[in-house]
Amino acid sequence: MNIHSQRIEALRSMMRDQGWDAVVIKGSDPHSSEYLAPRWQQVKWLTGFTGEAGDVVVTLDHAGLWTDTRYFIQAVRQLEGTGVELHKMRIPGAVGIPEWLAAQGGLKVAVDSLCQSVAFSEQIAASCEVIGVPDLLGPIWPDRPEIPATPIITLGEDLAGESREARLDALRRFLLKEGCDAILLSSLDEIAWTLNVRGSDIDYNPLVFSYLLVTMEDAFWYVLKDSEPDDETAASLIEVGADGVTVLPYSDIAYALGSIPGKLFVDTSTLNYYLYSIITESIPQESLKTGESPVPLWKAVKNATEIAGMKEAHLEDGVAMEQFLYWLEKSVAEGRSISEFDAALHLRSLRAAIPGYRGDSFETISAYGAGAALPHYVTPSENAPILEPHGLYLVDSGGQFLFGTTDITRTVPLGPCTDLEKEDYTLVLKGHIALSMAVFPHGTAGCQIDLLARDPLWKARRNFGHGTGHGVGFYLCVHEGPHDIRQNFNPQPIVPGMIVSDEPGIYREGLHGVRHENLILCVPDDENEFGTWYRFEPLTLCHFDTSAVVKELLSPEEIAWLNAYNEHVYQTLSPRLAPEISAWLRDKTRELR
Amino acid sequence: MNIHSQRIEALRSMMRDQGWDAVVIKGSDPHSSEYLAPRWQQVKWLTGFTGEAGDVVVTLDHAGLWTDTRYFIQAVRQLEGTGVELHKMRIPGAVGIPEWLAAQGGLKVAVDSLCQSVAFSEQIAASCEVIGVPDLLGPIWPDRPEIPATPIITLGEDLAGESREARLDALRRFLLKEGCDAILLSSLDEIAWTLNVRGSDIDYNPLVFSYLLVTMEDAFWYVLKDSEPDDETAASLIEVGADGVTVLPYSDIAYALGSIPGKLFVDTSTLNYYLYSIITESIPQESLKTGESPVPLWKAVKNATEIAGMKEAHLEDGVAMEQFLYWLEKSVAEGRSISEFDAALHLRSLRAAIPGYRGDSFETISAYGAGAALPHYVTPSENAPILEPHGLYLVDSGGQFLFGTTDITRTVPLGPCTDLEKEDYTLVLKGHIALSMAVFPHGTAGCQIDLLARDPLWKARRNFGHGTGHGVGFYLCVHEGPHDIRQNFNPQPIVPGMIVSDEPGIYREGLHGVRHENLILCVPDDENEFGTWYRFEPLTLCHFDTSAVVKELLSPEEIAWLNAYNEHVYQTLSPRLAPEISAWLRDKTRELR
Repeated sequence: MNIHSQRIEALRSMMRDQGWDAVVIKGSDPHSSEYLAPRWQQVKWLTGFTGEAGDVVVTLDHAGLWTDTRYFIQAVRQLEGTGVELHKMRIPGAVGIPEWLAAQGGLKVAVDSLCQSVAFSEQIAASCEVIGVPDLLGPIWPDRPEIPATPIITLGEDLAGESREARLDALRRFLLKEGCDAILLSSLDEIAWTLNVRGSDIDYNPLVFSYLLVTMEDAFWYVLKDSEPDDETAASLIEVGADGVTVLPYSDIAYALGSIPGKLFVDTSTLNYYLYSIITESIPQESLKTGESPVPLWKAVKNATEIAGMKEAHLEDGVAMEQFLYWLEKSVAEGRSISEFDAALHLRSLRAAIPGYRGDSFETISAYGAGAALPHYVTPSENAPILEPHGLYLVDSGGQFLFGTTDITRTVPLGPCTDLEKEDYTLVLKGHIALSMAVFPHGTAGCQIDLLARDPLWKARRNFGHGTGHGVGFYLCVHEGPHDIRQNFNPQPIVPGMIVSDEPGIYREGLHGVRHENLILCVPDDENEFGTWYRFEPLTLCHFDTSAVVKELLSPEEIAWLNAYNEHVYQTLSPRLAPEISAWLRDKTRELR
Repeated sequence: MNIHSQRIEALRSMMRDQGWDAVVIKGSDPHSSEYLAPRWQQVKWLTGFTGEAGDVVVTLDHAGLWTDTRYFIQAVRQLEGTGVELHKMRIPGAVGIPEWLAAQGGLKVAVDSLCQSVAFSEQIAASCEVIGVPDLLGPIWPDRPEIPATPIITLGEDLAGESREARLDALRRFLLKEGCDAILLSSLDEIAWTLNVRGSDIDYNPLVFSYLLVTMEDAFWYVLKDSEPDDETAASLIEVGADGVTVLPYSDIAYALGSIPGKLFVDTSTLNYYLYSIITESIPQESLKTGESPVPLWKAVKNATEIAGMKEAHLEDGVAMEQFLYWLEKSVAEGRSISEFDAALHLRSLRAAIPGYRGDSFETISAYGAGAALPHYVTPSENAPILEPHGLYLVDSGGQFLFGTTDITRTVPLGPCTDLEKEDYTLVLKGHIALSMAVFPHGTAGCQIDLLARDPLWKARRNFGHGTGHGVGFYLCVHEGPHDIRQNFNPQPIVPGMIVSDEPGIYREGLHGVRHENLILCVPDDENEFGTWYRFEPLTLCHFDTSAVVKELLSPEEIAWLNAYNEHVYQTLSPRLAPEISAWLRDKTRELR
């Protein structure tokens, strides 16, 4: 019996005491975060599974992990000996948790209501008796990590381009329009954006665990603070307080919601079931309005200051990337033994030297050869594969800076490449360029232009199984909505000021993987009788290696784009590069004719 | 007071007698048909408005017509003097009928329940008391046209490729899967397809007004038949009856629904509110299942016989089109006075000479110059514009044949064209070719490839405001679902056997319009590690005139496609053309180099 089966047995013992037939633990936290702080890595603690998407159901005679295609192999390996069975999602005939519970018939189901969305709980409630228990695992998890409370900083208008008063005012205008008196924000990046605050409560995500309740007159920020906060945090809390925001203890939110005066607006796509239950039990139905929070869209449309900051971040990041690629090429050519992990560490050290660096924006994917065929490859810290002077190496990485967030992927030929590697490299580049060159009318959604990145691949009967682009925050989460560029139907139009990644790929199991990623900014283009037109401008500054390009596969327009982009990268970065790197980059960016 | 305001006053008098505050008349019929037989042209009878999309609300002090952008100008003209006000839809801030009624507050609303969908009635019921009245206008419309009952014919397996028994069996397997005992079909093309019957009850639509109720053992066809049906109809009814279908009077459907044994399946997207109300009042809730009828998808995926028939139809249609284009070019060159209407008549006479011709598949759009800038132009039968030996003429037309349905648009340079005309002509052709050359994996929906037809236009900051493609029936409606190719989100994948139009355009008010339309058939392409691949094959056989092409705007691949298509048209059609037309076509299809 391993540690995980022991924990599951402890849970079952609690279930017997309480008279529960089943327990549901979602792989989320009280704020619907994508990345989880250790305290909320409940699925990992209970089952040992470390994938980014996994939910658990435990009954008295069954324990199951629900996850999708990306994690099947990993789940089988990690669940060995735990007694937890894998339930496969995103396959034909997949049975989700609500349907699976329904099929068991009339269960009494305890859900960890703090880490579960309203919608999901209501799905289960359609066929089961649901008991919402906040912190359900607490009693059997003695050494559970605390809720993180890292130092809090504020961003001034010079960095954020808009004051927190202005943002609170916008929320109040929204309340007027909706006929409401208060709005509760629980999504951490919405709160950080509104208050111009940042922390580091979750790895790679500069967030502060908190809730924000905004009324027409006041704003209440429920946030953890140590009894003796560090100087920076203390100053930040004073600054926020001076702007009319009352700072209160994190856990007080539950009491506050019991007595909201007037009509409350909540977004149930992010609000947890625990707080929602408190609200619905405390206030009459007509005093509650549910809908979409306006903050994600406001946050996605960057202002001029944010755009300037993002450009600065990409300039600095580009210098680090070119330094890295120079070092990589030289090291491999000189026959030094560099592992995938060594490379990731070196890139991190180059980024870390940039003033304003606050950490990476996600865990670097540093993958050579067959490793790169896994789009979500995790570079092992021990015994990582050594880079060899042939074939393709893929590096997907990004940084958090006080003035912006970056996310870039380059696929690097480390020496001679096979014809298939070159073809895939070129076709993905065609897709990348086509999206980067898009022109589209006002009202166009990402799913309506996703094809641009795929069509060159489809023509060669190749494809990739992930989205083409995601929104990126301003010194915030590297994945943010409400827009994206993917095949799935998301009606949110792409409008000027939005930033999105452009990252098509091709993955061949056991052979290689190719992905080319720039961040691109939507900008106004033209206006005529047919509409208002937009296009994209690349933010990312780092050359594409032309040595793996099959020139015959590119159109004259694509070659022109590639040459112009590489020349722009050289002209922009060379003044900041050491002479030998600048000379090397001059050579790497020679025109493809 | 004109005839329409008199009719509205008669309606108001009825409203006062009955105590109704408002009456809603939808521009539809009891079968959710797109085209309306005269009996169901209620909006036209009441208001004089003849557009294809229009709904009416009459209160005691207001009468309004709700229609969309396509018909604003026409509506203003036609509603003059009727007292009916125009309510604009598909514009920012548009207020639909349910919302408008809701804003009046607590009305008692009578709806013509026979011609209204379940969903729409339920929207109104959210804020109003709804009284469903079948044939609401009957009492004030003394000379109202009868329900049409044109001759009925049957299609044998040689034409349809599948027997009616096989199709009824498929419906019974569907019932088994759904756990139901009966299904009610009310959509006329679903019934015609299932029973392999055709009529001509609605202009351009080879349909038979009827309902079909299929149980596990029986099938009941509720259809109008004169006391002395013509020989063909009598034989058809005997044939259908011999295949185990009980033929019953059309109006008996209302009684039959009162006593369905077991569980009934209905599709509320097409079922009218009148029958739905009878069902819900007669049978318990657990005996009713609502969902999507399987017939539209079955009908959309053509079998080998239907595909062969459609190809034959397009061969015959292509011959007629080339004869027409030859006549047109010669006539205009010789300075004869040909009006848009003359041209439409001549084309019709050429199609009518084809054995198996059953009528046109829609009203021909024959438009010269500025007229073609209206995508839904109606060619006037009197004083139609005369074609001049310069600029662009657009003809969008199609035929119904016993063995298939056609729909083709050609834009024809009648002499010298302006640079703008040529550019628009070429850009639309680029879009047409791009969609025709599409390659896409299994699971791809039309909205995910719509961009192919638009991107070449968007790159030149031009666009068109209609869908790119619609499904086409096999000797059935020229518009059919469930698939289409347009920007709107329709998740239905395009699969082999589906036929769809490929018809991008550019419209310039007061100047000209360009549209190029072929029907294309989805066929299997390839299968590999990345998926199962499909592509399109053009069905339409008629050359594209290269004299208006700006060659520099086409890529080498596009030029190759155009040359290969034109050569294929010549090789296929020339053996069937008179020598002088064949020689002319040889010249028209010379390679563009």
